[in-house]
Amino acid sequence: MTSPFKLISEHRCFGGMQRFLEHESREIGLPMRFSIYLPPQAAIGKVPALLYLAGLTCNEETFMVKAGAQRMAADLGIALIAPDTSPRGANVPGEADSWDFGVGAGFYLDATEAPWAKHWRIESWLIKELLSLLGAHLPLDMQRLGIFGHSMGGHGALTLALRHPGLFKSLSAFAPICAPTQCPWGEKAFTGYLGADSTRWIEHDATVLMQHQPVAPYPGGILIDQGLADKFLPEQLHPHLLEGACAAIGQPLMLRRHEGYDHGYYFIQSFMADHLAHHARALHTPA
Amino acid sequence: MTSPFKLISEHRCFGGMQRFLEHESREIGLPMRFSIYLPPQAAIGKVPALLYLAGLTCNEETFMVKAGAQRMAADLGIALIAPDTSPRGANVPGEADSWDFGVGAGFYLDATEAPWAKHWRIESWLIKELLSLLGAHLPLDMQRLGIFGHSMGGHGALTLALRHPGLFKSLSAFAPICAPTQCPWGEKAFTGYLGADSTRWIEHDATVLMQHQPVAPYPGGILIDQGLADKFLPEQLHPHLLEGACAAIGQPLMLRRHEGYDHGYYFIQSFMADHLAHHARALHTPA
Repeated sequence: MTSPFKLISEHRCFGGMQRFLEHESREIGLPMRFSIYLPPQAAIGKVPALLYLAGLTCNEETFMVKAGAQRMAADLGIALIAPDTSPRGANVPGEADSWDFGVGAGFYLDATEAPWAKHWRIESWLIKELLSLLGAHLPLDMQRLGIFGHSMGGHGALTLALRHPGLFKSLSAFAPICAPTQCPWGEKAFTGYLGADSTRWIEHDATVLMQHQPVAPYPGGILIDQGLADKFLPEQLHPHLLEGACAAIGQPLMLRRHEGYDHGYYFIQSFMADHLAHHARALHTPA
Repeated sequence: MTSPFKLISEHRCFGGMQRFLEHESREIGLPMRFSIYLPPQAAIGKVPALLYLAGLTCNEETFMVKAGAQRMAADLGIALIAPDTSPRGANVPGEADSWDFGVGAGFYLDATEAPWAKHWRIESWLIKELLSLLGAHLPLDMQRLGIFGHSMGGHGALTLALRHPGLFKSLSAFAPICAPTQCPWGEKAFTGYLGADSTRWIEHDATVLMQHQPVAPYPGGILIDQGLADKFLPEQLHPHLLEGACAAIGQPLMLRRHEGYDHGYYFIQSFMADHLAHHARALHTPA
């Protein structure tokens, strides 16, 4: 079976292998990059995997360089997958004018509005294309897949998990955008990608999606860490709204608020081990 | 006591604090930056510290972002200090023409040749100025100071430790330049900074310095990790020469050669815990 992936670089790390890969995405219509960390256990059989979605301005390298996750992933025998955050090289006019819209800011959805609808199809890329290719070509057990992310990627993790029931066995987030229909980042992105009709936005709002769940989708709990010195907390993130929605439907939520921590990767790395342990409990349990 | 340090940024990390600082360096004649990680234990008393010297093209941020060292430093109660690798903003003609000479390539020595001698004084900056300021203004026990580094910074750690007996209680390195008088990087740097007379280079060559030690300077051992897939190993690093020098004078050397690992931070982070444990054994021993 010929691999659809082009190797950009690889680096041995904690006895496993850190790879940077590219493929011609059918859904995006452009080459797309992602990174994968395969723990040592992947050399002898399929391993569970964790999809990590990064935040605004990040790319497929950010998490692997800054989060310090490989050490514990190697111990636990869990693969880590980190996709890029938007198409690159589409040459849509104005695509790089903002740091919170366009390049580096795909918001993990399929745009419906011109000129974004042609290439900005991150949700379909991940769900319909990349995960299947990964399962077919790499030693990954896609029945044991979890998802997590940071900020815009925390929004992505929450919404993709709620929009695709059963696909992800475990869920967590660092400082996620919890109610994008009610914050400036979300309003700007959804207006641009989905149009001015805000009734179409709620399908991509984690708080609204949670409110509409008939039963708790993650009875084992969702883990969220939030720094209280995060400058984006007051205006952009709104974890209390998701907290309310979870309480209303009986979804267990471990929302931990941490004094003094900000929005960056020094915060994320401080609690990474707790997130990997959270996912490992779900992913290592026999189905 | 007024602090000589200007705070560039700070981030809570593993219960401690990651800071980026700048000061007006007397020795360099320009503002110089460094980073420091203070573990939680520094809030209640002085802690031992480890000086990390980075490699070519790096700056004061590289180690703190990529090495994954804060987690274990927090556990062990050891501060981490990472200085920039050269003056910035000196505007010496040609200073940024090469990636292995000039900006980002100070080689941890004092240049004697024009036009570098005025500002390229990294050894004096670190040894005569920065360490004293740190001891005076931060909760650091400078009697319990270790040193380590990577590549050019491994050369720096080895040579500064051997040139300043007793200053550093513990020593280790990742893929260090072990014999700079016998490799292209060292020949280029020493010619530029120290002049064409190669008899003056040997004072900054770890292998030669080790050969001249009357007794083993680190009876507890020196730890060196080296990847065997490191593309710079054959021509630039020469660990076997340092190995021979250590053997000749009876200096214990734990030189570990690792199959498949390259020269980058995915290699470094894989063995970081072993280095911190190595230093902790020396720094936590009562004097």
